[in-house]
Amino acid sequence: MRPSSSSSDDVFAGVLSRGGVAEQVSGTAWLLALLEFEAALARAQAHAGAITVEQANEIATVCRLEHFDVGQIAAGSAEIGNPAGPVVARLKTLTDAPVHKGATSQDAVDTAAMIVTKRALVPLLHDLRQAAAAAAALAQTHRDTPIMGRTLLQHAVPTTFGLKAAGWMSSLDEAADALVRLPLAVQLGGPVGTLAGVADTPQDALAVLTHLARDLGLDAPHLPWHTLRGRIGELAGALGVAAGAIGKVARDITLLAQTEVAEVREARGGGSTSMPHKHNPVAAISALGCAQQAPALVATLLAAMVQEHERAAGAWHSEWRPFTTLLTTTGSAASWLRESLEGLEVDADRMRTNLGDAEPDTGAAALLTDRALENR
Amino acid sequence: MRPSSSSSDDVFAGVLSRGGVAEQVSGTAWLLALLEFEAALARAQAHAGAITVEQANEIATVCRLEHFDVGQIAAGSAEIGNPAGPVVARLKTLTDAPVHKGATSQDAVDTAAMIVTKRALVPLLHDLRQAAAAAAALAQTHRDTPIMGRTLLQHAVPTTFGLKAAGWMSSLDEAADALVRLPLAVQLGGPVGTLAGVADTPQDALAVLTHLARDLGLDAPHLPWHTLRGRIGELAGALGVAAGAIGKVARDITLLAQTEVAEVREARGGGSTSMPHKHNPVAAISALGCAQQAPALVATLLAAMVQEHERAAGAWHSEWRPFTTLLTTTGSAASWLRESLEGLEVDADRMRTNLGDAEPDTGAAALLTDRALENR
Amino acid sequence: MRPSSSSSDDVFAGVLSRGGVAEQVSGTAWLLALLEFEAALARAQAHAGAITVEQANEIATVCRLEHFDVGQIAAGSAEIGNPAGPVVARLKTLTDAPVHKGATSQDAVDTAAMIVTKRALVPLLHDLRQAAAAAAALAQTHRDTPIMGRTLLQHAVPTTFGLKAAGWMSSLDEAADALVRLPLAVQLGGPVGTLAGVADTPQDALAVLTHLARDLGLDAPHLPWHTLRGRIGELAGALGVAAGAIGKVARDITLLAQTEVAEVREARGGGSTSMPHKHNPVAAISALGCAQQAPALVATLLAAMVQEHERAAGAWHSEWRPFTTLLTTTGSAASWLRESLEGLEVDADRMRTNLGDAEPDTGAAALLTDRALENR
Amino acid sequence: MRPSSSSSDDVFAGVLSRGGVAEQVSGTAWLLALLEFEAALARAQAHAGAITVEQANEIATVCRLEHFDVGQIAAGSAEIGNPAGPVVARLKTLTDAPVHKGATSQDAVDTAAMIVTKRALVPLLHDLRQAAAAAAALAQTHRDTPIMGRTLLQHAVPTTFGLKAAGWMSSLDEAADALVRLPLAVQLGGPVGTLAGVADTPQDALAVLTHLARDLGLDAPHLPWHTLRGRIGELAGALGVAAGAIGKVARDITLLAQTEVAEVREARGGGSTSMPHKHNPVAAISALGCAQQAPALVATLLAAMVQEHERAAGAWHSEWRPFTTLLTTTGSAASWLRESLEGLEVDADRMRTNLGDAEPDTGAAALLTDRALENR
Repeated sequence: MRPSSSSSDDVFAGVLSRGGVAEQVSGTAWLLALLEFEAALARAQAHAGAITVEQANEIATVCRLEHFDVGQIAAGSAEIGNPAGPVVARLKTLTDAPVHKGATSQDAVDTAAMIVTKRALVPLLHDLRQAAAAAAALAQTHRDTPIMGRTLLQHAVPTTFGLKAAGWMSSLDEAADALVRLPLAVQLGGPVGTLAGVADTPQDALAVLTHLARDLGLDAPHLPWHTLRGRIGELAGALGVAAGAIGKVARDITLLAQTEVAEVREARGGGSTSMPHKHNPVAAISALGCAQQAPALVATLLAAMVQEHERAAGAWHSEWRPFTTLLTTTGSAASWLRESLEGLEVDADRMRTNLGDAEPDTGAAALLTDRALENR
Repeated sequence: MRPSSSSSDDVFAGVLSRGGVAEQVSGTAWLLALLEFEAALARAQAHAGAITVEQANEIATVCRLEHFDVGQIAAGSAEIGNPAGPVVARLKTLTDAPVHKGATSQDAVDTAAMIVTKRALVPLLHDLRQAAAAAAALAQTHRDTPIMGRTLLQHAVPTTFGLKAAGWMSSLDEAADALVRLPLAVQLGGPVGTLAGVADTPQDALAVLTHLARDLGLDAPHLPWHTLRGRIGELAGALGVAAGAIGKVARDITLLAQTEVAEVREARGGGSTSMPHKHNPVAAISALGCAQQAPALVATLLAAMVQEHERAAGAWHSEWRPFTTLLTTTGSAASWLRESLEGLEVDADRMRTNLGDAEPDTGAAALLTDRALENR
Repeated sequence: MRPSSSSSDDVFAGVLSRGGVAEQVSGTAWLLALLEFEAALARAQAHAGAITVEQANEIATVCRLEHFDVGQIAAGSAEIGNPAGPVVARLKTLTDAPVHKGATSQDAVDTAAMIVTKRALVPLLHDLRQAAAAAAALAQTHRDTPIMGRTLLQHAVPTTFGLKAAGWMSSLDEAADALVRLPLAVQLGGPVGTLAGVADTPQDALAVLTHLARDLGLDAPHLPWHTLRGRIGELAGALGVAAGAIGKVARDITLLAQTEVAEVREARGGGSTSMPHKHNPVAAISALGCAQQAPALVATLLAAMVQEHERAAGAWHSEWRPFTTLLTTTGSAASWLRESLEGLEVDADRMRTNLGDAEPDTGAAALLTDRALENR
Repeated sequence: MRPSSSSSDDVFAGVLSRGGVAEQVSGTAWLLALLEFEAALARAQAHAGAITVEQANEIATVCRLEHFDVGQIAAGSAEIGNPAGPVVARLKTLTDAPVHKGATSQDAVDTAAMIVTKRALVPLLHDLRQAAAAAAALAQTHRDTPIMGRTLLQHAVPTTFGLKAAGWMSSLDEAADALVRLPLAVQLGGPVGTLAGVADTPQDALAVLTHLARDLGLDAPHLPWHTLRGRIGELAGALGVAAGAIGKVARDITLLAQTEVAEVREARGGGSTSMPHKHNPVAAISALGCAQQAPALVATLLAAMVQEHERAAGAWHSEWRPFTTLLTTTGSAASWLRESLEGLEVDADRMRTNLGDAEPDTGAAALLTDRALENR
């Protein structure tokens, strides 16, 4: 029961949706997560005695991708204004068991968002960590390799390529650490977030919440967060920081790879339709192209925090695409940067040549590099 | 040779990709536009004597969707960093005629973007105009219907629903007018934008440019605009204004439809998974949800105007998805708003009741409404 | 009666508020514009017979900066939520004549915004045009100067510095043209935008509107636009495009000025606190720093278009600072770029050296340059 | 040695710069922080034996506001492109002691930014906590007060006002918690971030860093972060989340205060210039107006993370104003929301009336409210 490949109709996918994230945020992946919510809710309600175990089993049986069609769910989402509606409607044609009991559409969609996020973060963090590891290896190897320090794009005084790479490593690691720290919580509250209707008593409803969270490997929140979107905002911010960290490294690589500088070179350089002989740093360029889409998506998600009463009229809906795209573009950026860094060819001789008459004293930089590597 | 339906793997499509725009910006639509560029370029070069008519015909023959697969182009785009590369590579396997002569990838992708835009604007503008027409009809019908004017969400003094609707109409019309005024130009410059290589002489190259533009129904720019992105910025701004205009109307409708206000009601109200009896203004809500995604996408496109030298290392790549999404989300918002306005049920009695003791004097408002309707 | 210098408490003003715009958008400038609205409204109402000429004269007499203190208006704005409130309140202590008759706070603030904009655009456009003129001079001088074309930050094939400068010129000119085309309109509608109360009859109220607009040198809108913010959105978009055009040129200059490239150099290079010998392109860097703040401000203003009913509860208020800052930062960017371009030292020999073995053929580029210069 | 009041020339200050933050981010406050950096650096260098204690004392003596003029620093900042340059230059006219030894401008400006932030967060967090406390009191008082739950701006089923207020409280508290958790670190690295020149040996330089951090009450970073801007990005994100949390509460208040709903009322309602009798929720409206400016500022700061090599050419400069404004606008929003919540008049009878026939069952909501209050 895993999502099929994301075969979206997108000529830019190779550049903009690289790596493993796109598959985890596909329509199929969202649909699967919606179904997992419904199945897990039923199990949790059975556990709390709100429905029978048989009913929960029956519900689980119909919560399978094979009974659903993304296109039909997409079309049906227009009726009620979200995709949980048609999913539940379809489930009710498949079983008489009490599907979605006491829940509201947003319970399903928000929990699905967190399931999707959890899965999308796996390849994203893997690529980010591997990129950091590649930077760490560069820092180690080039601990004492002098390079001209450049400020405001002018030669300043020498530093080391090791320290430069250690900075890359450390900012990538910190961005990954921040993403790992983020709590991902289930959503369950029912129509207006009181948990009424989820089970026979409020205490039982809380037990359902706890069990649901445990079942899905997510946190149980203190309160339903239908219109308290700090979690989404924090997640967005952390992804934005990750994209920014990636963008900085990619920017440095494109600058170091300039023909006039020529201090680094990507292993697989890309040509062009008109100049096949060129050796473009396609990976770093693509990483930049992906990373630069992130800040505004974060802004959309932060702006969407202003949600009315118990369910927002528009702001919630405005989250879905930016959220999905933010995961995809950050993941794609991470994947590209990893490729760029893992194959980066460093020309230490050229670095030395570019120093000109400057006298490198690498001691201080090496000490900082060691510190950073030890702290990894 | 028209794009097939956009059957993207997206459970949110019903809400977020409504109307005719999505199909016009699909991967297939982009691919088709890339092929149209290559065929038209060959025709223009034949016209200028840079290649033979036979060669142009041969190229046109292979520039057909049936020879291509979006998935393969998407995958191939990762090699060179854009989708024109694999399209040209594939064309060269299909013919020995001089495909893409003197052109660069960005010539193809930018021109394709303008072709795609031109087509996407057709349904977008149609929905926007129909929404404005529906607002005009409301203004006409309710020319003298008093309604409480509300400032800062407090009752102020009466106005008319006609004037309110006239304001909606006028801002939708103005947004559409601005979009219509925007020039859409072909891109042709070759590797570094000098037109060298496009034809035998610079004069011939200019003739190719002129002919290409005429063939594709686009403008011929004074200069290649590979890294002069004012056109993209202006287009983005105009789409952002349209989305804002739509959002304002949708916001008013959701407020007027509040249970406590109840002055308007959408013809097709949506229920909810937990409360099927509800009559949610799904169309206005969805319009808002789509419209609110636009501002940040505009910001991404404006930020991407800072492009290096003769071809940007990342900023250009960062345009593709925001551009496509901005068209889609604005178009979707327009489609939803049209539905909302066309079926809007107005409760003039309730408007009168909500006035309380306020004494409406509708003369001034009616005069302004007439003026606005006459100016339509 | 002109605004005093903007002596704001801001250590960054030298970098971020350069040029003539800051003074035109200062608190004093806003206050002056608010007073000009009130005086002009009275004159227009006298013209339409709604008040007497003597009353209008009396009002004009008290609408003078000397009777006001920005600090007190600022403090008073907290009472009612906007600065027009305390201005009107203060005026009423100075005269018994019917100040602000039939108007609402937003009439004053929005009209003041357009007065302020009109004045701020003067230095902004002047700097933009001068920057374009400097680029034109470079294009003329270096019509045949070969320079390496650089795509994706890699050497591609040669172009000319003239064509590069012609591109800069043309995008700056187009951005200025777009700003000039924008209509700036007065705001007048009264509490809920019906013009009721502005004069004795609706026809008279329209006459007041017309006269007010003529008096202030602004357009008369078809409808009050209190919550129809397309004008603000368009203005924001055009400023964003101008900032983007500036940023592109500044980016190119910083790249060409890199130590390894060294093809241009700013006349007045800046040192650093630690390396006084450096020759940093401070003007281009500062232009970039200012320009990069614009896109997000545009997004805020576009997002603020979603305004409720007849007066927004928050969105209107959210416009004031971004609007003021967007004018300032774009103006500052224009001023910096003008300085950078006007003193730009071009090293044509270095450009030739950097070409290496590449054989420049400047004919096509020169033809395009001529075309662009002729079209100026 | 505390900053004088921020008497900026800004007619909107009462609305947009409310509370204690504006004073802490004024030009004077920045100048003071720059001087504190220089004095503390000298002390730390004396501690490490890099300069003498006498020299450090002499430097401390001249690092006083009275020797400086914000206007002159602002003007001087245009020479070198940042305000640290003229500060150091002025200090060197006041003493022969080795001011700013081994440091670079960005060391001073970035550390000053963190000092300013630390101080600005005090009133900001105080207002945020007091707002949360006011919400907590409302939750306590109205634990069992039924109110109609509203989803998509339609009546849904009842909840309690207590739970609604508990949600407000919890999201405000969480936003404050996140801000408190953020590490604020000194910046010290010298020209290219190697710490070379700060002291006689690399080990001594690290000792200076440690001592400097302790002296200023900031963290010592593992690496200089001149172009590793994750810290700024995280801070921006957390401020954006705080603004979003504030905006949500303010939005609810403006909706509940609508004339037709009338369930809450601000203690101090504002009138209007045309309708003095109105009771506008000025505080909530102003909070919204301030909060809605935050998301785009966050985007600017995230976009600015892409910084070149060892000192960015523009991106760093683009941080200063958005950073300052983000602190100000979030602080202002917090101050307004606190005022709104502390004086909020709740009409429980009206809430009951608005329920209509709906049968409230407040048990589940009350349980959740208790849980949230206990977790405070």
